[in-house]
Amino acid sequence: MKHTIQALVENRFGVLARVSSLFSARGYNIDSLAVGETQDPQVSCMTIVVNAEDERILEQIKKQLHKLIDVITVVDFTRREYIDRDLILAKVQKKKGKEGLVEKLIKKYPIKLVEQKKDFYILEICSDRHQEEEILKELNSIGIKELVRTGRIAIGK
Amino acid sequence: MKHTIQALVENRFGVLARVSSLFSARGYNIDSLAVGETQDPQVSCMTIVVNAEDERILEQIKKQLHKLIDVITVVDFTRREYIDRDLILAKVQKKKGKEGLVEKLIKKYPIKLVEQKKDFYILEICSDRHQEEEILKELNSIGIKELVRTGRIAIGK
Repeated sequence: MKHTIQALVENRFGVLARVSSLFSARGYNIDSLAVGETQDPQVSCMTIVVNAEDERILEQIKKQLHKLIDVITVVDFTRREYIDRDLILAKVQKKKGKEGLVEKLIKKYPIKLVEQKKDFYILEICSDRHQEEEILKELNSIGIKELVRTGRIAIGK
Repeated sequence: MKHTIQALVENRFGVLARVSSLFSARGYNIDSLAVGETQDPQVSCMTIVVNAEDERILEQIKKQLHKLIDVITVVDFTRREYIDRDLILAKVQKKKGKEGLVEKLIKKYPIKLVEQKKDFYILEICSDRHQEEEILKELNSIGIKELVRTGRIAIGK
């Protein structure tokens, strides 16, 4: 099961290394991690998505996160109501006969055309966990040359 | 000077801890870091923004990044043409007399109203490095209750 965990941390060097070590020391691979400043420049927010098969180990990790001196709060969104978003920048191939398809996708989904070159479009996709897979499947059917994503962030309702 | 560095890495556990340790061992604080899967599920993309005063140290870090076995490529966007985006989810206070201002900002900037509750709006803001500060200043003048951001990602032109 995928868990979305958020930690508010002091914006000091080394925090990210300490937090990511907590996960890797237990053989947990992080699906995505996003860390950036909050409205308070001294506080950063980390949003971590992990696929936890053994929830007991995840509970341990959350407890140990709490204990790190730079960690202020830890929230597990799994059983809460929340809004999530993941941002993708993608270069999608221009193919003859597929131009209409890209336009259709831009109308149907939260996709913006950022720029277009001779051979490709640069698209910005900002969607939630429910829509993302569907969008990527459509874009894959056209041809993705390059793809960068931020990793998921979440905010409670 | 802010540098935006991107590393394609093998999607294995421990990579994030190793990469972030490289920076923290040299006293480098990471402004933001975003890591997520690419179009190839075996490869993740890390986008790191650092404020490097001493560029020689940054050069060393980039070289050492290259040497890590899980790192496939390293790109420093600093002197290249690129598109960047940062995604923010924010709870902005509803204040009497300020309703029109939020609507105005939604029209002017790449801001979407995701949901509204009795006391606050949840906004999605997806902007580049040039616009972001301006938008946050405007939202701060209304009142930000909570703010989460992904950290910047970038794609070459």
